[in-house]
Amino acid sequence: MGKDVEVGATEYGVRDYHDPPPAPLVDREELGKWSFYRAIIAEFIATLLFLYITVLTVIGYKSQSAADECGGVGILGIAWAFGGMIFVLVYCTAGISGGHINPAVTIGLFLARKVSLVRAVLYIVAQCLGAICGCGLVKAFQTSLYDRYGGGANGLAEGYSTGTGLAAEIIGTFVLVYTVFSATDPKRNARDSHVPVLAPLPIGFAVFMVHLATIPITGTVDFRVGPIIGAAIAAIYHQYILRAGAIKALGSFRSTA
Amino acid sequence: MGKDVEVGATEYGVRDYHDPPPAPLVDREELGKWSFYRAIIAEFIATLLFLYITVLTVIGYKSQSAADECGGVGILGIAWAFGGMIFVLVYCTAGISGGHINPAVTIGLFLARKVSLVRAVLYIVAQCLGAICGCGLVKAFQTSLYDRYGGGANGLAEGYSTGTGLAAEIIGTFVLVYTVFSATDPKRNARDSHVPVLAPLPIGFAVFMVHLATIPITGTVDFRVGPIIGAAIAAIYHQYILRAGAIKALGSFRSTA
Amino acid sequence: MGKDVEVGATEYGVRDYHDPPPAPLVDREELGKWSFYRAIIAEFIATLLFLYITVLTVIGYKSQSAADECGGVGILGIAWAFGGMIFVLVYCTAGISGGHINPAVTIGLFLARKVSLVRAVLYIVAQCLGAICGCGLVKAFQTSLYDRYGGGANGLAEGYSTGTGLAAEIIGTFVLVYTVFSATDPKRNARDSHVPVLAPLPIGFAVFMVHLATIPITGTVDFRVGPIIGAAIAAIYHQYILRAGAIKALGSFRSTA
Amino acid sequence: MGKDVEVGATEYGVRDYHDPPPAPLVDREELGKWSFYRAIIAEFIATLLFLYITVLTVIGYKSQSAADECGGVGILGIAWAFGGMIFVLVYCTAGISGGHINPAVTIGLFLARKVSLVRAVLYIVAQCLGAICGCGLVKAFQTSLYDRYGGGANGLAEGYSTGTGLAAEIIGTFVLVYTVFSATDPKRNARDSHVPVLAPLPIGFAVFMVHLATIPITGTVDFRVGPIIGAAIAAIYHQYILRAGAIKALGSFRSTA
Repeated sequence: MGKDVEVGATEYGVRDYHDPPPAPLVDREELGKWSFYRAIIAEFIATLLFLYITVLTVIGYKSQSAADECGGVGILGIAWAFGGMIFVLVYCTAGISGGHINPAVTIGLFLARKVSLVRAVLYIVAQCLGAICGCGLVKAFQTSLYDRYGGGANGLAEGYSTGTGLAAEIIGTFVLVYTVFSATDPKRNARDSHVPVLAPLPIGFAVFMVHLATIPITGTVDFRVGPIIGAAIAAIYHQYILRAGAIKALGSFRSTA
Repeated sequence: MGKDVEVGATEYGVRDYHDPPPAPLVDREELGKWSFYRAIIAEFIATLLFLYITVLTVIGYKSQSAADECGGVGILGIAWAFGGMIFVLVYCTAGISGGHINPAVTIGLFLARKVSLVRAVLYIVAQCLGAICGCGLVKAFQTSLYDRYGGGANGLAEGYSTGTGLAAEIIGTFVLVYTVFSATDPKRNARDSHVPVLAPLPIGFAVFMVHLATIPITGTVDFRVGPIIGAAIAAIYHQYILRAGAIKALGSFRSTA
Repeated sequence: MGKDVEVGATEYGVRDYHDPPPAPLVDREELGKWSFYRAIIAEFIATLLFLYITVLTVIGYKSQSAADECGGVGILGIAWAFGGMIFVLVYCTAGISGGHINPAVTIGLFLARKVSLVRAVLYIVAQCLGAICGCGLVKAFQTSLYDRYGGGANGLAEGYSTGTGLAAEIIGTFVLVYTVFSATDPKRNARDSHVPVLAPLPIGFAVFMVHLATIPITGTVDFRVGPIIGAAIAAIYHQYILRAGAIKALGSFRSTA
Repeated sequence: MGKDVEVGATEYGVRDYHDPPPAPLVDREELGKWSFYRAIIAEFIATLLFLYITVLTVIGYKSQSAADECGGVGILGIAWAFGGMIFVLVYCTAGISGGHINPAVTIGLFLARKVSLVRAVLYIVAQCLGAICGCGLVKAFQTSLYDRYGGGANGLAEGYSTGTGLAAEIIGTFVLVYTVFSATDPKRNARDSHVPVLAPLPIGFAVFMVHLATIPITGTVDFRVGPIIGAAIAAIYHQYILRAGAIKALGSFRSTA
C-alpha cells in the first residue's frame, strides 16, 4: 500500500536482491547429496499426509451429511482441510524440499527454471506415489465408505461443460502458482527475511479460496491438463510481466521515453 | 498493550520514522518507468481474480443452497472468500502496486496524498476493467446460473431504507480504509520492518468482518457514494486525529498546558 | 517447545530484558501530551466499531436464521466476528493506545501497574461511551430488528444457574487477560521484537475460543463482576507465578535448596 | 519453495545452527530452579484451560444441535476450538514450559532427547491433573448436560474397527508431532529468529486439520496407545530421516558416491 518504492536494476545500477541463475536441467552436484534424496522423501510423506487428511475429511463429510443434513464439517470445512493442510505441510517441508507438494507447483517452478529437470521429475514421481499411498491408507481404513463415495474423487458437477471445468482449473491453478511465485520472489526475500516462515500462510489461503470457489464446479483439480496450463501462465506472468524478464526486454524503455 | 511509548516529534526533536512528502498530483518521473505500468497491470489482474473467485463463490452458494439447505459454503464461507482473497492478493501485489485492489482504498490513499492523482485515476480504471473481466469470466462459464442469481449482485435487503444501506457502507469502508492506514503507517514501519509481510492479514480480516456484519443489510459494498465517504472519513481520522496533522495543529498544546 | 531456556535474574545477575517500573497512579507528564488524549479517542472509536460490527452480526444472524434455519453466519460466524474484530482493532490501535478495547483488559493491566489510574479510568469511560455509541448506531439503522432481538444482548441461557454463568465469565476473561499478559511481556519482547505486530493474532484467537465455548452459556461477557475477578486472577497468575514477583518472593529458594 | 539451500555439516565443515546436546535423563540443575516448577504449573493451567474450553464447546454443540439441527457451532467449530486453543496456549506457554500441553508431544520430545526424563514425567502428571480439573470444572458447571453427553468423551464411531481407530490416531498424532519438530528445529531457528513467535500457528492448524479429518472416526485422540506410537514415529522420522542422525549415519555417502 502506498507508493511503489521498487528500486529497479536499470534505474540506479544497484539492486538490493539477487536473482539466482536458472537451475540447470541436470545438476550433477545435487545428485550426490543426501539432502536431495531427503527432499524427495519429504515430498512423498507430505503428499501422502495431504491426501490422507483431505480425502478422509471429504468422505467423513459425505458420510455424516448423508445421515444428518447439517451434521458434517460442510463444504467450508473441506475447503479448510485443503488450505490448512497446505499451510502446515509447506511450513514443515519448506526448508527440506521447498514444499511443493503439488505437481502443478513443481511444473511452474521448473518452467521458471527454479528447479532442475531431474529434481522436478523425481518430485512429481514422489508426489504421485505419495498421493496413491495416502488414498490407499484411507481405503484400507474404511473400504466400504471409500467405495460408496468414490474415494472422494472429483467430478464435473452436472450442468457444466468440459470447457468450463477446464477453464476453472486453469484459473484456480494460476491463483495458487502466482501466490507461490510472489511468496518466494528473491526481491521480496531481500526486503524481508521472514518469507520462509510466513510464505506458507498466503499459499494455504490461496488453496482455501480456490476450493471455496471451484468445489461446486469441478470438485477442484482433476482435469489433468488444466493445472499444467495454469501453472505455465502464472510462470509467464510472474517472470515476464512482473519481474526482470520484462525489465530486460524493455531495457530501452526509459531512454526512449 | 501497556503504556503508550510514542516518541513525538515535538517532544524530543527527533523521530525514529520519516513521513514521506505528499505525493504530487502528477508525478512525471513515474510515468517513464516500467514499474508504473506493471503496477497498473497488477491491479487489473488482482481485481479480476478477486471478482472471479468471490462471484463464483456467491453463485455456487446460491445454487447449492437452493438444492440443499445446508449444502453450500454458507454466508460464513462467502465472508471468508472476500476476506481471504484480499489477504492473498494484497500479499501478492503489495510490492508491485501497493495492493489497493479496491477504488475506495485508492481514493483514501489519494486523499491522504500517498499516491499521485494520475496513479489513482489509472488504478481505478484498471480496477473497474478487472472487475468487469472477472465477472465476464464467471458469466462465460455458467451463463444460466449467473443470470438466475443476478451475477451475485448486491442488493439492499428487504426492510432496510436507502439511508441505512448508505450508512452501513460508510462505516464498513471506514473500517477497511482505517485498517489500511494503520497497517501502512510509516511510524509503524520504523518500529517493525515486517509490515509489508504482515499487513495483508489484518486487512483481509477487516474485509472478512465487514462482510460478516453487512451481508445481511446491503450484500456489502454497492452504494457507489458510501465507500467514497467512508474512505474520506478514515483518511481524515488517521491523518488529523492519530497522526502528525493533529500534532502540528496542536503544536502549542504543551507549552500552553 | 524443547527445554526451558530462561535466564533468570537471580541466577546470573544479568537479564536480557527490562521490566518497566510500575506505572504511577497519576502520571502528570502524560496529562500534558496530545498522545494521551489521542489514545482515549482511539479507544472510543475502536470500542464503537467493535460493538457496531459484532451487534450487527448477532442481529443479522438472529434475523436470518429465523427466516431460514441454516441461512445465517451461524454461531461460528458470531465467534469469528468477536475474535476477528479484536484482532483487527488491537492491531490498529496497539501503537496508539495499547489496544485495550475492553474494560477487563484495562483493569488487568492497571492491577499489574502497567497503566496509571488516571489512564485506566479515562480508558474505561471512553470504552463505555464507545460501546453505547456503537449499539446506538445499530439501533438507528434497524430499530425494529434491534428491539425484537434485544440488541443482541447477552443473557443467561435456560438451565444454567447464576453461579455457573459467573464462573464461566471468570474463566473466559482469565483466558483473554492471560493471553494479553503473555503477548505483551517485556521478557518476550526482548527475545523477539515482533510482538507489537504479532500479539494481536493470539489475542484475537483467545476471544474467538472463549466465545465458541461460552456463547451457549451466557452469551459471553455480561455478568459485570465476572470479568473483573477473572482479570484480577490473570494479573496475579502472571505477575506472581510466572514472572518476577514470584522469583523475588522465592529469592532464597536456590540457596536453601 | 525453490531450490534446496541447506548447508550441510559434512559439506563445508561449518553450520549456521547448533544442535543442543541430548537432555540427560535426570538434570539435577533444573531441579533447583523455580523456572522448572513454574513450567510444571504452566503445563497444568494450560491443559486445564484446554480441556475446559474444548469440552464446553463439544457439550454446547451437542446440546444446541439436539434442539436445533443448525443451531450449534458445528463440527467445524469444534475443530476450531481444539486447533485455536492449542495455538493460543502454545503461544502463551512456549517461553515458560515449552508449550507441550499434550502427553504425546512430551513423549515425542523426550524420545528425541529434547527434555529430561524427570521433566517429561512431571509434565505428563501435570497435564493429566490439568485435564481432570478442566473436565471437573465443566462438570461442576453443568452436571446434567455433562452426564447426558458423556463429558464430550471420544468414542469409536459405528462401523469402524479398533484397528482403524488405532491407525487414525497414529497418523493424526504423527502429523501433530512432526509439525512440532519442524517448528522447533534448531536449524530453522538459526535462519529465522521468529520461530518462538510464529511456531504456534502451524501447530494449532495441524491440530485443527487432524480434528477435521478424524472426528468422524474416533472423536480424535482416545486410544491410549495410538498417540504414543505416532509420536515415536514422528520423532524417528525427524531425527533419522530429516536431520543429523541420517547425515551422520550416511557420513561416507558423498565420498563413496
